[in-house]
Amino acid sequence: MDHSTNDGCVDDHDEYNVEIVYDNFQMKKSQDGRLHLSNKHLTNLQSDTLYHLALNTSTHNFEQMFGDIKFVCMGGTKKRMYEFAQLATKELNIMESKLVDITESSHRFSMFKIGPILSISHGMGISSISILLHEILKLLHYAKCTNVTLFRIGTSGGIGVEPGTVVITNKVVDELLRPFHELHILGKIVRRPATFDQKLIEELGQIARLQNNPGYKTIIGTTMCAMDFYESQSRIDGAICNHNLDDKMDRLTKLKKAGIINIEMEALAFGSMCRYVNVDAAIICVTMVNRLDGDQIQLTKQEYHELQKRPQKLAIDFIKKRLAIIDNNNNYHHHHHHD
Amino acid sequence: MDHSTNDGCVDDHDEYNVEIVYDNFQMKKSQDGRLHLSNKHLTNLQSDTLYHLALNTSTHNFEQMFGDIKFVCMGGTKKRMYEFAQLATKELNIMESKLVDITESSHRFSMFKIGPILSISHGMGISSISILLHEILKLLHYAKCTNVTLFRIGTSGGIGVEPGTVVITNKVVDELLRPFHELHILGKIVRRPATFDQKLIEELGQIARLQNNPGYKTIIGTTMCAMDFYESQSRIDGAICNHNLDDKMDRLTKLKKAGIINIEMEALAFGSMCRYVNVDAAIICVTMVNRLDGDQIQLTKQEYHELQKRPQKLAIDFIKKRLAIIDNNNNYHHHHHHD
Repeated sequence: MDHSTNDGCVDDHDEYNVEIVYDNFQMKKSQDGRLHLSNKHLTNLQSDTLYHLALNTSTHNFEQMFGDIKFVCMGGTKKRMYEFAQLATKELNIMESKLVDITESSHRFSMFKIGPILSISHGMGISSISILLHEILKLLHYAKCTNVTLFRIGTSGGIGVEPGTVVITNKVVDELLRPFHELHILGKIVRRPATFDQKLIEELGQIARLQNNPGYKTIIGTTMCAMDFYESQSRIDGAICNHNLDDKMDRLTKLKKAGIINIEMEALAFGSMCRYVNVDAAIICVTMVNRLDGDQIQLTKQEYHELQKRPQKLAIDFIKKRLAIIDNNNNYHHHHHHD
Repeated sequence: MDHSTNDGCVDDHDEYNVEIVYDNFQMKKSQDGRLHLSNKHLTNLQSDTLYHLALNTSTHNFEQMFGDIKFVCMGGTKKRMYEFAQLATKELNIMESKLVDITESSHRFSMFKIGPILSISHGMGISSISILLHEILKLLHYAKCTNVTLFRIGTSGGIGVEPGTVVITNKVVDELLRPFHELHILGKIVRRPATFDQKLIEELGQIARLQNNPGYKTIIGTTMCAMDFYESQSRIDGAICNHNLDDKMDRLTKLKKAGIINIEMEALAFGSMCRYVNVDAAIICVTMVNRLDGDQIQLTKQEYHELQKRPQKLAIDFIKKRLAIIDNNNNYHHHHHHD
């Protein structure tokens, strides 16, 4: 742990006498807007296989393939991210002959490129999205992309809000209400804060207000990231359950009092990794159930489908706004126009 | 935590003063061989939606669809489990007009039924497989299946063994070498042992010896279950890495000395959940890389494909042996023969 010990971290020990390291390190933003990863071992690799993306720096030209990427949007399922790619194609008037799953041969994730946007599935849970993020961050590094914004556009359970509510995460905690992502590295417990850029969140909130969507609200609030779908989310309908309905309601009420609006399963890894490498990143999730009313999702297929488009629309409106600014800058500086 | 406190568990606290509960509870095996889940809330549900499998007890007849299941085989990717289903169809001479992905409309997992076998993808990581296991255990419960054996047939990294070595897990530890799965439930830290039935492991070892496979070994040994693919597996080729090559080699050498043969990402959830509900379960993984030689998987597509079939063959040979015994018993008791 090179720099973390130089970074004013507090050392501690757990009850097994395992060292606890608070790793508050954050990379500095580079002048040129590029994501220069600080891991020096990458420069020593003759070639780098991004194994779960089925891409390799010696067989693929990353700069040519991905150099123009400005937005990376991630969500759980392949289908959702295919539909997001379709929506982006339509909304941005991008002429794509056909959407190609670039990572198809990995059989792990699906990835589509639509102009300056990558749309990628991340699977379920912290471990799955962490694999994707390691490899996507390396992709952006090798492709020399500049000023990239990352989004997770997902689904979640809500606490005390109507199903269909969109939540922009401004803070994330684990199931013990701790604001860090805990990893076990080389026999030590490493805790990395997961925080989000509040300016970006405010900007998303403003765009949501301008959307003036009928029938649902968009809220900025705290997200709980859980390690499983059943027990650690206090559900009582799992295969294993040692608590009862009263325990569950007590717990959910406590979470609500702590300001938690929704529960999902990836925010800690997404928040801590993006913070560490200092890329702009935000999480936009729609709630599929009000957990104070029950555990099971009662939506029809059609309702589900409509709901999961809401975070996508917000991301698209953000992208449109940013592209318009880029366009205007280009007009101003370079006297040419993209259409 | 009802029964765990009646079970001689030790209460402890972490450095945040969070209660630590050692939940050693294990369900008793039922006389009739059925998996009767002990969660009483399930009987109060009017219908149960197995959300990530796209199945519902009121719209699907579980007994009719799944009552004859004796083997559930899980692995990471949809493609691998489709190929396993194809292999099972061929090896067991089962006439299936067409392999149908039963959970296709969930867009989360893929599930194929081949006679008494379910072949299902579980994605990557503890969270993903935990969702699948909760719903599969409920499926087996509702379908009134008897004497079911669960397998994870997967891929892994090896420590000090040739790529292509098959490892049958007899013990699993986390990245801190602790033999339990740690969950956070209702604000407490819950630790559940992950153990495997040693008789079943011995039986698998015997079958492997009889296979007499040329060119590779099958070993019984300890598996480490990691939360991520890069940092907690001591890789130095991730987007984020604070350790150097010496730190990595020290760590891997230490793991090897502790008896760890391979590293994967699901064994703790699989081992602890199957132990808890007391179903027979085993993990068979092939190693894709010797981590003492490097981090990256260097196999060709064809080699990879051949290697990932090795755990599948062992599972199939086990299933053949068990089915032969069932067949013989049926001959003896009921005087009829299945062909």
